[in-house]
Amino acid sequence: MAKATPESFMARALELARRGLYTTDPNPRVGCVLVKQRRVVGEGWHVRAGEPHAEIHALQAAGEAARGATAYVTLEPCAHHGRTGPCAQALIEAGVKRVVVAMEDPNPEVAGRGLAMLREAGVAVETGLLEADARRLNPGFVSRMTHRRPFVRLKMAMSLDGRTAMASGESQWITGPAARTQVQRLRARSSAVMTGVESVIHDDSRLTVRADQLGLEAGAAARVAARQPLRVIVDSRLRLPLAAACLREPGRTLVATCAREPDRRAALEAAGAEVLVLPAREARVDLAALLRHLAAEEACNEVLLETGATLAGAMLDAELIDEMQLFVAPTLLGGEARPLFALPGLARMAQQRPLQIDDIRAVGRDWRIIARPERVS
Amino acid sequence: MAKATPESFMARALELARRGLYTTDPNPRVGCVLVKQRRVVGEGWHVRAGEPHAEIHALQAAGEAARGATAYVTLEPCAHHGRTGPCAQALIEAGVKRVVVAMEDPNPEVAGRGLAMLREAGVAVETGLLEADARRLNPGFVSRMTHRRPFVRLKMAMSLDGRTAMASGESQWITGPAARTQVQRLRARSSAVMTGVESVIHDDSRLTVRADQLGLEAGAAARVAARQPLRVIVDSRLRLPLAAACLREPGRTLVATCAREPDRRAALEAAGAEVLVLPAREARVDLAALLRHLAAEEACNEVLLETGATLAGAMLDAELIDEMQLFVAPTLLGGEARPLFALPGLARMAQQRPLQIDDIRAVGRDWRIIARPERVS
Repeated sequence: MAKATPESFMARALELARRGLYTTDPNPRVGCVLVKQRRVVGEGWHVRAGEPHAEIHALQAAGEAARGATAYVTLEPCAHHGRTGPCAQALIEAGVKRVVVAMEDPNPEVAGRGLAMLREAGVAVETGLLEADARRLNPGFVSRMTHRRPFVRLKMAMSLDGRTAMASGESQWITGPAARTQVQRLRARSSAVMTGVESVIHDDSRLTVRADQLGLEAGAAARVAARQPLRVIVDSRLRLPLAAACLREPGRTLVATCAREPDRRAALEAAGAEVLVLPAREARVDLAALLRHLAAEEACNEVLLETGATLAGAMLDAELIDEMQLFVAPTLLGGEARPLFALPGLARMAQQRPLQIDDIRAVGRDWRIIARPERVS
Repeated sequence: MAKATPESFMARALELARRGLYTTDPNPRVGCVLVKQRRVVGEGWHVRAGEPHAEIHALQAAGEAARGATAYVTLEPCAHHGRTGPCAQALIEAGVKRVVVAMEDPNPEVAGRGLAMLREAGVAVETGLLEADARRLNPGFVSRMTHRRPFVRLKMAMSLDGRTAMASGESQWITGPAARTQVQRLRARSSAVMTGVESVIHDDSRLTVRADQLGLEAGAAARVAARQPLRVIVDSRLRLPLAAACLREPGRTLVATCAREPDRRAALEAAGAEVLVLPAREARVDLAALLRHLAAEEACNEVLLETGATLAGAMLDAELIDEMQLFVAPTLLGGEARPLFALPGLARMAQQRPLQIDDIRAVGRDWRIIARPERVS
């Protein structure tokens, strides 16, 4: 560690937290560093739901050295009796003198309780150190806790003239292997991968995380791919083919529909799908209701939307997209090819959808643009 | 000057040459540095056609100090008796001992003659120092001399989803003021600005260089705007309105057509246009013939193509675009809006048009992408 400053210790805790990027779901990624006399005496991070929290790992690593130490934690320690007991209590019992947290718990029902427990036991408490970085690490968990819906990230592969496929639907491969590795990693960090039934009908895509395409060391890749994100198929009229490849993959496939067709539903369930009937909005699945369901019932933090222009446009129109990752290939597909977003009703410049561009960088021979829709309402 | 190396002197000569970026047309941009005992004793650049070449300015600045000096010139000195006599002869007469040139004259009919004249007089000659930079400075002059056609640079302003205008044609303003300044500078460095009649009919654009939009100091801006690029309108059926604003602007407007309609032609000429009748290709102006004409008869070096999807697509299909500068605004216009390139017949991924991306950078709130089509044939 270059410098022994509070910022450097919290940065280290964030770095540790990031090790759980692909595995903590549905829990948040959390890291903890215990420091005494400007030296790190224990480190830990949350690895997987059901296993100990970051603070417990760090306390175990520090042993007796934890007494009198300062704990740097990326998220407020919990005060509830979960599988491992409250972390705030464990810090108190270990004799930790001071706790610095990057952000409070985003769950409004428990926010501040862990800090209060610490303060009551005489532990000094500070909050807000590198808070923006801590929030960025868990956009889905924060969104689910504060807005009761997942963080939705749209991924698209496009040509420089804004096309995702030929008019026929042919699209493999617009972008190169480096971009595809990035997409695999986006899937791996997501609670769910969401698409429209048209995409599945056309591409018969499996929507899975493939260990060999993550660009990770083999053991780590296998551990990541052991958790498959929930596959969510928006299928208003239950047109998903019973032979769809994704139904035979490990993990679950949830078909979100507004059609009440018991026979078709039974057939899909027999083929391996779970069917969720939602209210309709203009004869299509109510997308906001679907996202509320995914947050409340499936504990979905980050949802990766990989789909065509119709569903992408509908999600954009409903202001349900939080982030776009556009992988731009250095090629032209021409004006007949398929667009990024169908935005019916957008006819005048004044109705354009402004974006905030956060990052543009090279990914192999392609370019990745990260942008956010500016909220109109 | 940081270091007194041959590269640093040539880099300085290139820097001087760049001062003529907007003014030397149809001549190339050329700079010259005279060096004696590792010290610069004279500098010059070509300012304007009809005025002295770079070498003459540098020799005048050096006076007697030129005797025994080394001349660094970005382009081979001329051997022909133009308005100012051959520069090679002037260097010999001034007693210059050694001449280092970045590139030979790209005109195959005179290439090497200046160097031969120097060698015969006992002057040491070297070539190729920073040659790539020197060629990049005069892409149009090099293209005209070697390929007998101008260097064609396509400029487009687009949304992130690859749209240049709404379906109605409405397009002002997709990009911001910084991008528009860049476009004004692209116009200012070009011999001609080329567009399709549809764009003129819709936007009634003037296609001029506006001094106040160049982002230059006022005196310099006025000198730049004093030379207006030739306006070239591709108008296969002579539909240009007689009241078009561009016909009333300073400078010339050339209407390229394949229609032989003497009355319409006379009316356009009376309104201020020059009409050029070219052979047709599939009932449209033969674009390659137009570019040959612009090189041979109008001495056009760089042509800026500012147009819509139809002409842009036709130019791309004809492999007549050398460079694209795409100004990308952080906004979405949707799938109904107008595309970048109409490429009829492009139906399969195997037919896609690969590009080479040379540069991506922020321009105000927009992004500029510079790309080149990969030559297929």
